[in-house]
Amino acid sequence: MPRFSADKIRELEVKILTHLGAPTEYAELVAGMLVEASLVGHDSHGAHYITRYAERIKSGVIDPKAIPEVTRETASTAIIDGHWGFGQVTAKKAVEVAIEKAKRTSISAVGAIHCNHIGRLGAYTMMAAENNMIGLLMANVVHPTVQPYGGNSRVLGSNPISVAAPASEPNPFLLDFATSAVAEGKVGWAAMNGEKEIPLGWIVDDDGRETSDPLGFSTADGAVRKEGRLLSFGARDGHKGYAFSFLMEILGGILPGAGSISDQDMHLYENGVLAIVMNVEAFTPVTTFRQRVDSLIKKMHGEPVQTGFQYGRVQVPGEFETRNRQKRLKEGIDIPDVAWKRIVRLAEELEIPLPESGL
Amino acid sequence: MPRFSADKIRELEVKILTHLGAPTEYAELVAGMLVEASLVGHDSHGAHYITRYAERIKSGVIDPKAIPEVTRETASTAIIDGHWGFGQVTAKKAVEVAIEKAKRTSISAVGAIHCNHIGRLGAYTMMAAENNMIGLLMANVVHPTVQPYGGNSRVLGSNPISVAAPASEPNPFLLDFATSAVAEGKVGWAAMNGEKEIPLGWIVDDDGRETSDPLGFSTADGAVRKEGRLLSFGARDGHKGYAFSFLMEILGGILPGAGSISDQDMHLYENGVLAIVMNVEAFTPVTTFRQRVDSLIKKMHGEPVQTGFQYGRVQVPGEFETRNRQKRLKEGIDIPDVAWKRIVRLAEELEIPLPESGL
Repeated sequence: MPRFSADKIRELEVKILTHLGAPTEYAELVAGMLVEASLVGHDSHGAHYITRYAERIKSGVIDPKAIPEVTRETASTAIIDGHWGFGQVTAKKAVEVAIEKAKRTSISAVGAIHCNHIGRLGAYTMMAAENNMIGLLMANVVHPTVQPYGGNSRVLGSNPISVAAPASEPNPFLLDFATSAVAEGKVGWAAMNGEKEIPLGWIVDDDGRETSDPLGFSTADGAVRKEGRLLSFGARDGHKGYAFSFLMEILGGILPGAGSISDQDMHLYENGVLAIVMNVEAFTPVTTFRQRVDSLIKKMHGEPVQTGFQYGRVQVPGEFETRNRQKRLKEGIDIPDVAWKRIVRLAEELEIPLPESGL
Repeated sequence: MPRFSADKIRELEVKILTHLGAPTEYAELVAGMLVEASLVGHDSHGAHYITRYAERIKSGVIDPKAIPEVTRETASTAIIDGHWGFGQVTAKKAVEVAIEKAKRTSISAVGAIHCNHIGRLGAYTMMAAENNMIGLLMANVVHPTVQPYGGNSRVLGSNPISVAAPASEPNPFLLDFATSAVAEGKVGWAAMNGEKEIPLGWIVDDDGRETSDPLGFSTADGAVRKEGRLLSFGARDGHKGYAFSFLMEILGGILPGAGSISDQDMHLYENGVLAIVMNVEAFTPVTTFRQRVDSLIKKMHGEPVQTGFQYGRVQVPGEFETRNRQKRLKEGIDIPDVAWKRIVRLAEELEIPLPESGL
């Protein structure tokens, strides 16, 4: 499969989005976030997603020019109407507003409605961490693929959550994942790469039987089939992952007024979003906070590990992303052949020159 | 084992606590919360815990008369110093302050330091839900029993989280659990009841091997042994439960200024606590919110279930508690023999008459 430097693939995707009608600022934001997701190792939400956004622009699901608008506001809360623009534009606006409010009111919460797919959540919560704040982002996803605990059908979306907190470089604290066992795109990524086996505990077939075949849930093109279901995280050991998935419907979807998976008025692929931002200094001095997070990270790194544990030391949430980013900035980003073919087709259709593979 | 009505056991425990120096108001609060935990089915945090609190009062860990104090405050945030009184008194104060602030500022966050064991978290988050608010409570627990993902030692506490949201009776939404596979007391409860087998995925032995013997972690008296460890929830399927456990150190412990498991200045059994309260009406009309939560609950209840699923229908977080409460209010609360003997000894020592078993 071809490999590109982050800059090359970002530049290509900016061109694609501007050709499709996006203002340069939005195109740079969206392409930047897709490529950033690839860099940090969340390929499911990475550069290859551009062709899906292109389809959604063409079919009118995404209005590439729409400007998000604050429609309800108090000193410490707001609701942003995304007007069906790019989810990234809407979610970034929500977090920016939340950060500004938290500077004045110490804690804030901003929700988003009429919001398309926002991509990787960690990009937004890190904006808060970079401002010495704690950022929480929660979303529900209107694409029923996840089986409730004990259930036997597709009901919930992958309903992700992210929390970021300031710490010393190169170790921010970053929790960033789907409340399903994995994001649906991670099964699709395995399928696109021709992998024959994914871990048990990710998906079940239509009869609820465990399977390790990615094609039980995904097509070879990486799309979601009608058959198969994702499990909630940790579902083989209990209900707790499912409870978090349910919670995302309430906090991400219902509270901001977007709705839940049970509401007919939510659109396919819509994301309900809630950002909560807390200004560390209102609670405890930032230097103390950082020292204590650093000390906790150091403690974890010094703990004994299980024989054969793949990472060699106990991991801190966010370390996976930092490590991948350093590596891929140097070595480039792989795009699976099937995804690259789709990108080539799109670029040719828009008469955009393609980069040579390589760095 | 003996069984008592909730009223009988509560009355006994109020007397024990007042005899040990607690003001009536505090004794009623603490005893009420312990009995409530038994009623809703969280026996690990239930009525039997009174003998541990008695020990901690006698040894000076808990000051039964201490009055919690607001030591740092903004319009929407506060830090409460519990002054090593009852954790319940401190945590209730924190949530009361958070609710009052959220009435004015829409969202609030209140932390607690110098706080003893706060018991079952759901009791506090439900206070917010009863005020048409969403309550989040997060805590770190300074009692290292939990193995980090990939690790091979005891590091983290059971670090619980609870979120409650208003919905129509009899179905509040209530997420309330440890970020370990189970609270340590649930293994202890199994051991006290002479159970020979707990589910795999709860604990490992000192060599990190899975075991289903509760005595691998707990004594027959329900205390925690030095050997064995709890797993994070869902640990057999991945890192996500561990990430939440780590998050509780940051949000529950470090942000409010209590500290984390890596700080020497935190005391054994100390709880760092953070409550976040959001006033629903600031985001979306309460009637719409309730209707949508109800509709989501109804949808879940109507979904197909796996053959043999013990509850007969897909569960909503909080349903377990509601069902147990209804049953136990009628049928009474069981106290394991070993725990009852400890309560009898304590009552005799304090010359408090014991209730007859029964309703």
